[in-house]
Amino acid sequence: MEKQTLLYEGKAKQVYSTNEPNILWVHFMDQVTALNGKRKTQIAQKGQLASAISDYLFNYLTDKGIANHYLKKVGPVDQLVKKVEILPLEVVVRNLAAGHFVTKYGVPMHQKLTATIHEFYLKNDELDDPFMNDEQIMALNLATKAEIATLKAQADLVNQYLTTLFKEINIELVDFKLEFGYDETQTLILADELSPDNMRLLDMTTHASLDKDVFRQQSGDMTSGYQIVLDRLINRK
Amino acid sequence: MEKQTLLYEGKAKQVYSTNEPNILWVHFMDQVTALNGKRKTQIAQKGQLASAISDYLFNYLTDKGIANHYLKKVGPVDQLVKKVEILPLEVVVRNLAAGHFVTKYGVPMHQKLTATIHEFYLKNDELDDPFMNDEQIMALNLATKAEIATLKAQADLVNQYLTTLFKEINIELVDFKLEFGYDETQTLILADELSPDNMRLLDMTTHASLDKDVFRQQSGDMTSGYQIVLDRLINRK
Ligand SMILES: Nc1ncnc2c1ncn2[C@@H]1O[C@H](COP(=O)(O)OP(=O)(O)O)[C@@H](O)[C@H]1O
Ligand SMILES: Nc1ncnc2c1ncn2[C@@H]1O[C@H](COP(=O)(O)OP(=O)(O)O)[C@@H](O)[C@H]1O
Ligand SMILES: [Mg+2]
Ligand SMILES: [Mg+2]
Repeated sequence: MEKQTLLYEGKAKQVYSTNEPNILWVHFMDQVTALNGKRKTQIAQKGQLASAISDYLFNYLTDKGIANHYLKKVGPVDQLVKKVEILPLEVVVRNLAAGHFVTKYGVPMHQKLTATIHEFYLKNDELDDPFMNDEQIMALNLATKAEIATLKAQADLVNQYLTTLFKEINIELVDFKLEFGYDETQTLILADELSPDNMRLLDMTTHASLDKDVFRQQSGDMTSGYQIVLDRLINRK
Repeated sequence: MEKQTLLYEGKAKQVYSTNEPNILWVHFMDQVTALNGKRKTQIAQKGQLASAISDYLFNYLTDKGIANHYLKKVGPVDQLVKKVEILPLEVVVRNLAAGHFVTKYGVPMHQKLTATIHEFYLKNDELDDPFMNDEQIMALNLATKAEIATLKAQADLVNQYLTTLFKEINIELVDFKLEFGYDETQTLILADELSPDNMRLLDMTTHASLDKDVFRQQSGDMTSGYQIVLDRLINRK
């Protein structure tokens, strides 16, 4: 497979075309951002760790039968994925209160939520990814009622599988963000990245953050958390 | 009926107890606020106009069979209402894009929405009335699924009746905010105020704002719009 033109450079990854029209080459950068890109740093090894964790988790979900874009690793920071038409909605699933949810609604940090919460955000950096409810999404023709239901159901499956997987390695899955898109067969599949850049993970014993919150809160060495996650995944059973 | 202790002074009204435990005395002030109280002014006649319009609209909805808190006027800026336990949720209904909806989602002003949108906001000035989706509301035990359905259904009825009423007097109902509460029989009824402080109204011919947007945008004499609304209501048919 041949890496061709740079199609898009985002906050964490570069996306290239390949000689296969339905396959993209994703390059994981060491760049880390917070506040929707307003704070930006390079952190050595970050791209490699995020890529390796994402590789592990997508392969795990593929084994469980979750339709997704992932094909394979082609280097420590490079992956091949099926090209999809990304839905302009970020799907957030919350098991425990954290992050914006805590500050915005005045809820105690890590409070267990009586039911899992799904949130949708418009994927639009200029508008600062605004939060939307289902009716707004439908009224603006961003997704249909059926698509919203599929997104929630797929996100629930991912939540069940990943929660169980992480529990095995003594990690609590607090929340995560997913992206979905339509592949060439018009199937809505899971896309983007599955790494501590996009999920909150707590060591179940020490309650230490093993995710990007360490960067957001400038509370220590972020990559050592990512390394712990990767090591525990690789060494499980 | 006797006005007794001041129970609460809000951004637009004072609420007093009366000699009847289930009846409150609501006093409409001339105070107008924007940006959740950060901008504040006194505008002569505003209390009187908002009270008179609210009196008219609640009586209209009572005639249509919409359960609500309204009892009667006891002066130009004073009303009696049934005391309710207010749900800490503001219910917003949008027929056309305006206000936050326009800036937050980058939608053209006054774009017709393909379906009416309901939005819920946590009634909490300290948290700046954050927007919530249905699952968040349920997970934080602010309302049940059944209560949310009732709120939406009641808001839809109010929307139908008020849209029709305003159309009769050449006014378009763009959006509005409602509050609901439980009365002493544990019935969820419409409460608070129905005035241009809490709804957007456009003259259908000139497209002039006849509501608080004139104050928010400092674009002219706000009360003349309120006066037009009141005059047209009183003189209809
Ligand atoms: N399979 C895919 N096909 C097409 N685009 C994808 C796919 N997976 C992810 N993307 C998009 O590629 C970009 C990845 O780069 P990233 O740095 O995460 O960008 P952003 O700053 O927009 O989040 C995102 O815009 C994401 O939506
Ligand atoms: N029938 C009612 N019983 C009890 N409280 C009510 C009733 N109707 C309205 N209220 C409450 O009275 C207050 C009215 O004052 P207002 O100036 O609008 O306050 P705010 O600044 O909180 O919006 C609001 O908090 C509203 O929720
Ligand atoms: Mg991204
Ligand atoms: Mg009020």
